[in-house]
Amino acid sequence: MPYDRAVGRIYLGVDGGQSATTAMVGDGEGNVLGRAKGGPCNHVSGEEARERFVTAIGGAVGEACERAGLGRDRRAFAGGCFGFSGGPADKRALVEEMFSFERLTVTHDGWIALAGATAGEAGIIAIGGTGSICFGRNAQGRTARAGGWGYVFGDEGGAFDLVRGALRAGLRMEEGWGPETALRGRLMEATGAASMNDLLHWWYTPDWPRSRVAKLAVLVDEAATEGDAVARELLAGAAQSLATIVGAVRGQLFAAGEKVRVAYVGGVFRSGPLRERFRMLTELSEGVTAGPPAYGPAAGALLEAYREAGLQVRLKNVPEIEK
Amino acid sequence: MPYDRAVGRIYLGVDGGQSATTAMVGDGEGNVLGRAKGGPCNHVSGEEARERFVTAIGGAVGEACERAGLGRDRRAFAGGCFGFSGGPADKRALVEEMFSFERLTVTHDGWIALAGATAGEAGIIAIGGTGSICFGRNAQGRTARAGGWGYVFGDEGGAFDLVRGALRAGLRMEEGWGPETALRGRLMEATGAASMNDLLHWWYTPDWPRSRVAKLAVLVDEAATEGDAVARELLAGAAQSLATIVGAVRGQLFAAGEKVRVAYVGGVFRSGPLRERFRMLTELSEGVTAGPPAYGPAAGALLEAYREAGLQVRLKNVPEIEK
Repeated sequence: MPYDRAVGRIYLGVDGGQSATTAMVGDGEGNVLGRAKGGPCNHVSGEEARERFVTAIGGAVGEACERAGLGRDRRAFAGGCFGFSGGPADKRALVEEMFSFERLTVTHDGWIALAGATAGEAGIIAIGGTGSICFGRNAQGRTARAGGWGYVFGDEGGAFDLVRGALRAGLRMEEGWGPETALRGRLMEATGAASMNDLLHWWYTPDWPRSRVAKLAVLVDEAATEGDAVARELLAGAAQSLATIVGAVRGQLFAAGEKVRVAYVGGVFRSGPLRERFRMLTELSEGVTAGPPAYGPAAGALLEAYREAGLQVRLKNVPEIEK
Repeated sequence: MPYDRAVGRIYLGVDGGQSATTAMVGDGEGNVLGRAKGGPCNHVSGEEARERFVTAIGGAVGEACERAGLGRDRRAFAGGCFGFSGGPADKRALVEEMFSFERLTVTHDGWIALAGATAGEAGIIAIGGTGSICFGRNAQGRTARAGGWGYVFGDEGGAFDLVRGALRAGLRMEEGWGPETALRGRLMEATGAASMNDLLHWWYTPDWPRSRVAKLAVLVDEAATEGDAVARELLAGAAQSLATIVGAVRGQLFAAGEKVRVAYVGGVFRSGPLRERFRMLTELSEGVTAGPPAYGPAAGALLEAYREAGLQVRLKNVPEIEK
């Protein structure tokens, strides 16, 4: 029986991020019908920013609907969930101007990342990107978070913090009070700096935003793989920090020994030594298993749209790129 | 025999800081003849800033000379030393436009602080203000520094870092994964914040420059004095960090067992528990004694002016406020 897409109940999930917006639409049974990407949609204050927001969201949703055979101009949805990097403040009203929903959830990016990572089940997500944060939800629907305090006060185990540790090790070596480490040479080579002291000062300037510094985290992984003891210690410390915030969330949401699925996402987990140490530390607690996420945040948003509408579905036909 | 001040060889020391400028003049035998203060003199780029710089320096030096009976308009000195917060770059030329010297040294504030703290002798200074840094000079004139990496990459043991630790402890308590601590209540009371999470976000805004946050370090001392275990641990950790950078400098300049005078300056050392633990840790190394500075940085600048001119003098008649 062909499903009448034009009149059916359609659900929408949107991941509104700092570098791109992803929209995904599905029917009432969890079948993903279409997915598309648009531009970034953070920062909504100011007229120009508002227009960029509307263009990014409108473009991604329109294209996802078109690919789903629903037509570019579909404005009405049975349920929707939007997760925004930087949080939901001010964005709900804009979304409601653009579309209508029987049920609408506007939340932050960590929330939809968790929903995607655990395929809508109870569990915990540890995010190690430029910064770090951890969210969880238990079977009773109770939630908790830990970390996410930003680069001045926290973010331990994130990529910026890893590179900060590498700079500190290089500085100690340069000042004559830390062990030899290949990190100093690697950082200088990768950046063209003549010394760690130069780099230290550069990294306080606008030429080196934290996202740019964070990209150097791969050097720590490379040095560790080649046996540098300082680099290995930095990765072990980052894994420990990330496992600690997971433990902080687990302790609040789950009983001792209860089965908990922990998903890890973000660039720092591309490091084998970090990832394996994180997994080992996390799985020391009975019942806990750690692994990569089931789905990405856009799929998580779509799952949340279903959940808020009271539908219990499993996603089907999720595009490979969202897994 | 009355000393002919008008024609004698006069030496000048200037401490050019972010909140005030202090000038001190002395005769060829180390007698302090006059001292005066002017406005702040950091930031010299831009025409307005340049004028502020010239006014602050000119005012302080003129007044010190007047008090010394040398006349406000004295421009020629046998020797001079200027120590500037933020370093000497661009400032030497300005100083040379204003005065003439047979010998002139333009350096950074840590340098003159060290010279004052040890009364010109070999030794080490540990500075724990908003940030932290350590300098030393041995009997052979060799120097070393450690730390001073700023609030993102270092500054451990400084006041901002102490308060950062207090916020982190409050956040862990709030997120349910750290021990109870009185610091959370104290920080909220002192700032009017409703939660540590509020404070966390405030402290990323321009309303809370690091100098303002750092002023709350006294709360950590108060909580520690009343027995708060977390606060005591923070002070002990800060003392350990400061002792570590002292050890880093000592190891590079002094032989094991060699007599070394370590002076501590800056607001964090007003905390009794921190100061005593720092002293204990520092004095664990044989030959090391730790204590308050002999003189302030303006007297240190004057001592450096003598030293660069090849004079070995002891300061006499140093005003109480410079001790």
